[in-house]
Amino acid sequence: MEVQAGELLSKINYPSDLRALDEKQLEEVCKELRAYIIDVVSVNGGHFAASLGVVELTVALHYVLNTPYDKLVWDVGHQAYGHKILTGRRGIFHTNRLYHGISGFPKRSESEFDTFGVGHSSTSISAALGMAVASHYKGEDDRQHVAVIGDGSMTGGMAFEALNHAGIENSNLLVILNDNCMSIDPNVGALKEYLTDISTSKSYNRFRDDVSAVLMKISELGPNAHEIVKKIEKGIKGTLLKRSNFFEALKFRYFGPVDGHDIHHLVKVLEDLKHIPGPKLLHCVTLKGKGYALAEKDQTKWHAPGLFDKITGEIKKVVSEKPQPPKYQDVFGHTIVELAEQNDKIMGITPAMPSGCSLNIMMKAMPNRAFDVGIAEQHAVTFSAGLATQGLIPFCNIYSSFMQRGYDQVIHDAAIQKLPVVFCLDRAGIAGADGPTHHGAYDIAFFRCIPNMIVSAPMNEEELRNLMYTAQLKNHGGPFSIRYPRGKGVMVDWQRPFKEIEVGKGRKVSDGEDIAILTIGHIGNEAVKAIIDLNAEGYHPAHYDMRFAKPLDQALLSDIFKKFDKIITVEDGCILGGFGSAVVEFAADEIYKGQICRLGIPDLVVEHGEQHELWAECGYDSKAIIEQVKAMTVARVTKGMVG
Amino acid sequence: MEVQAGELLSKINYPSDLRALDEKQLEEVCKELRAYIIDVVSVNGGHFAASLGVVELTVALHYVLNTPYDKLVWDVGHQAYGHKILTGRRGIFHTNRLYHGISGFPKRSESEFDTFGVGHSSTSISAALGMAVASHYKGEDDRQHVAVIGDGSMTGGMAFEALNHAGIENSNLLVILNDNCMSIDPNVGALKEYLTDISTSKSYNRFRDDVSAVLMKISELGPNAHEIVKKIEKGIKGTLLKRSNFFEALKFRYFGPVDGHDIHHLVKVLEDLKHIPGPKLLHCVTLKGKGYALAEKDQTKWHAPGLFDKITGEIKKVVSEKPQPPKYQDVFGHTIVELAEQNDKIMGITPAMPSGCSLNIMMKAMPNRAFDVGIAEQHAVTFSAGLATQGLIPFCNIYSSFMQRGYDQVIHDAAIQKLPVVFCLDRAGIAGADGPTHHGAYDIAFFRCIPNMIVSAPMNEEELRNLMYTAQLKNHGGPFSIRYPRGKGVMVDWQRPFKEIEVGKGRKVSDGEDIAILTIGHIGNEAVKAIIDLNAEGYHPAHYDMRFAKPLDQALLSDIFKKFDKIITVEDGCILGGFGSAVVEFAADEIYKGQICRLGIPDLVVEHGEQHELWAECGYDSKAIIEQVKAMTVARVTKGMVG
Repeated sequence: MEVQAGELLSKINYPSDLRALDEKQLEEVCKELRAYIIDVVSVNGGHFAASLGVVELTVALHYVLNTPYDKLVWDVGHQAYGHKILTGRRGIFHTNRLYHGISGFPKRSESEFDTFGVGHSSTSISAALGMAVASHYKGEDDRQHVAVIGDGSMTGGMAFEALNHAGIENSNLLVILNDNCMSIDPNVGALKEYLTDISTSKSYNRFRDDVSAVLMKISELGPNAHEIVKKIEKGIKGTLLKRSNFFEALKFRYFGPVDGHDIHHLVKVLEDLKHIPGPKLLHCVTLKGKGYALAEKDQTKWHAPGLFDKITGEIKKVVSEKPQPPKYQDVFGHTIVELAEQNDKIMGITPAMPSGCSLNIMMKAMPNRAFDVGIAEQHAVTFSAGLATQGLIPFCNIYSSFMQRGYDQVIHDAAIQKLPVVFCLDRAGIAGADGPTHHGAYDIAFFRCIPNMIVSAPMNEEELRNLMYTAQLKNHGGPFSIRYPRGKGVMVDWQRPFKEIEVGKGRKVSDGEDIAILTIGHIGNEAVKAIIDLNAEGYHPAHYDMRFAKPLDQALLSDIFKKFDKIITVEDGCILGGFGSAVVEFAADEIYKGQICRLGIPDLVVEHGEQHELWAECGYDSKAIIEQVKAMTVARVTKGMVG
Repeated sequence: MEVQAGELLSKINYPSDLRALDEKQLEEVCKELRAYIIDVVSVNGGHFAASLGVVELTVALHYVLNTPYDKLVWDVGHQAYGHKILTGRRGIFHTNRLYHGISGFPKRSESEFDTFGVGHSSTSISAALGMAVASHYKGEDDRQHVAVIGDGSMTGGMAFEALNHAGIENSNLLVILNDNCMSIDPNVGALKEYLTDISTSKSYNRFRDDVSAVLMKISELGPNAHEIVKKIEKGIKGTLLKRSNFFEALKFRYFGPVDGHDIHHLVKVLEDLKHIPGPKLLHCVTLKGKGYALAEKDQTKWHAPGLFDKITGEIKKVVSEKPQPPKYQDVFGHTIVELAEQNDKIMGITPAMPSGCSLNIMMKAMPNRAFDVGIAEQHAVTFSAGLATQGLIPFCNIYSSFMQRGYDQVIHDAAIQKLPVVFCLDRAGIAGADGPTHHGAYDIAFFRCIPNMIVSAPMNEEELRNLMYTAQLKNHGGPFSIRYPRGKGVMVDWQRPFKEIEVGKGRKVSDGEDIAILTIGHIGNEAVKAIIDLNAEGYHPAHYDMRFAKPLDQALLSDIFKKFDKIITVEDGCILGGFGSAVVEFAADEIYKGQICRLGIPDLVVEHGEQHELWAECGYDSKAIIEQVKAMTVARVTKGMVG
């Protein structure tokens, strides 16, 4: 739904229009921009609170910088809605995150103002430094390079790696630390406490400015005092003051903290900073959700609230007559507590996704056994491995696409050492509206090649529970991974008693002939749907829920190879190297002569949209399965006729 | 070769023996331990300078701590030779890094004193924190947990992630920062400069201790002064002093810097620290190579010098009558300079491996175009992507197994955005004596599943040059990866004129019949050797150097499928999901009815040894290829007879 913009905003199509305004008008622009974001997101959905928090910063940056000549990189990108609206996309902003609409994140192919595609956190400083070094190399030293990064993203290790490098490069780089004390959940960690300290302690902020004045007073006490003061002053200035700040220790010049909602002060500070060479950091304190009272109060809930009534603040929920299946994440969240009550070795770990993966349920119930370690996937994995060395059984829950961040640690610290870390991969497969950066497309492929790994995926809530139950029964010889998708399962009556699942064993879902459909994970339910329709049309493929991409159920596969000369594999994951490839590898080893067709995410970047839209586009929803069964049957018939 | 230990050392089999000594004897123990390391490494090889640098620290730790009850984690582990010698492995230390000998790194399966297996950097704080949290959970609060980490490893992002978490956990964790200003090459980055500052600046070190004394003096000047001093003291203590240190900002208590070669002071400090609860960091300044003059002077050269005469310091080189082929890394190092001279868009990036990957050649020749970014693979990748957005062509050289650290960034920042970053993966395939953590086993599998990636491997030096040449000709639609092994190539006359290689095109190496051998990369030379022997015995397999695991040469494969009903694929990489799997996938798509046998690294953790020993063990050296060809030929004959 398109929404009417305010008077000033409706005339701003590009930052050049913004820059033509008088600075006095910027407050009104901010007001209109904020209202516009509220209007559009309340009726179209999307991320909400982050963009509200940086309205002033966004306006100030595009007002002061000469974008797109100057390079502006947004970290993560949840906060870039204002940026999109001011850079040529107001008219299509209502298509945000919709299938074939604009992306919810900055995206290079969408606009020249989007200098770097984002989605995962902590990349902005590295990218902006690369741009700054390139500009310097090309002799374009008048160009500004700005990375805007939240205090949550600053906990990601690669942000530190980038600071450590940038501090010695002497490039024209400005890092703006957007300090709102939040990730999606409240930010955690020592750095956050440090930032809070320096933002809230008046004495600290004034002390640096006042120290010279105080020393002056002392020196007035006489010549003796004067000498001593000189000594102390030298000590303070030369060492303590210079290094009194975390970022200055990393050779950044530190400025701030400033009020991120004072548009005029921001404009002035950013103007000043343009003329200061080298790496510098502006500490900017903002309020996530600023300007929408409910969002200011409950920032996690309003991170991405879905549709809501902007007047009453009522979040619209789809009301259903009959009971609905739970989200997989909640099955995880409740089940880990249930298991932990029975097994005191179980611990829970999440890198900054307590509400996203529902570990918050355990964090509330057993605060000493559940850890939010910050946006820190690498550490989350190795911390879990450390726990496992002491006989504990950590359940480390990481979104599939974020697991890419901890990949080395899974190999190096968990798998090689055969440590029983249970990796629960939420958002595996097509993630939906978040798009390419968030699709959990590759995990089966990148986990399957690791020795000592178990790679499993449940077809429904009960299987998820039983895989979790099975994983904690003993050390199965290494890490045990369980992947499941974003969203709801299929069972209303899901909280059934635990049953062990034999590792590496699949199950037959339905008997059939001619063709065997082998699925792994939740997508198997598309095969179930397909088969109902196919049966009605006289086709009777069999269906197997293989459960494990590794170890493969070789006995079951051998039986299938004997019985069927046509096989279709279906997975919500990449077809290169994935579950289907495992089947094909085994078929090659067994010199199977039948035909195997692999359905899954093809070898291209899949854009954003609803999960079912993208399953269809990728050719593995129930309809695509039906078509494939028919095509392979026709082929057989035709071949038979020709032969 | 076994070596005689000194009088004291020869009686120390375990730390309990060490702890039975009088503290006064520790200096002698250090002397003997240092001599022993020099004696053994000079005749057996291995990492050298790192362990010499921590002799005193090692002795002090095992003297003060109650290992293995107390948990000691060594980061990376190059420095753990002294630890191994003192913990039950003196008698087998001469087998260090040899096939079936002890590992060059701490390894859990080798000793209960090795609490955590290492090899890659920056994992120790996460692991030790996991142990500390586990101890606290189990009520074992008397247990000490110590991570020893170098200043180089401290630049790795996950170390920061761990500090950020540890700072708020209040666990009994001691991080010992072994500050020797070195990675393998000199350490780089802002943090290193900061550490050097605080270690070398006398004024800074003394200032913190002296400040109270100075203030006392001022306050003696009268009641007015007293008031002012109170104010300044409060300010300094409350804010500046508390946060004047990088680590204290992260809520660690900071101690030091201390002289890491003063054994008695170390013992005292470590004793004291045992009684201080919570997260704490001891900054310990050491000299890499300490006690061996030449190593102290050229620490990069003596990181792992190979065999040497310990008296003269002469490093023993295998002298050959005839000219030898170069190392692949040097082909890379010289070729990038050659290409960069012709193409001013080319930049070189290495995460802390200038001498290991030979980018040091470019860093010397073109210092403004070649960057050592520190132990920071994640940043290295995204920094490269940032450069690429500005039209440059970065060659980012990362060892295959370290590439696992930058995996998310390759997907998220390079591949999805189709940026032309050239990834050169040194040490791909079996890495040799460094063992499981360093084998580049998985890169074909984990790169092949990523859209827009080109995955290539040269069979010899000329192909490496030509692939590098091809990669920089244009943006091929995304990242271009080139993998090659540790060690020497096969061509003496390698510096030939550049020729473009068509992307996705393989080549026929030799004609043949019955069986086609499809290889990728250097391991193809084992097939060449095999075929010479096979031909002599009357077998005539054909040989194709496929060059690309992605895109596959489908036209060539189709021809091969038509001509041959038996195919052997050979790769120096994992057989699950690797090059052979790509062939098998294509065969399934084409409904190829022949037999395909995949040779490569099997699905298990391969231990350390010489490359050729491990190729043989894994079953893909020339001998294994010969056997496989014969086996498949026999099978055909037998089958034909039966049929």
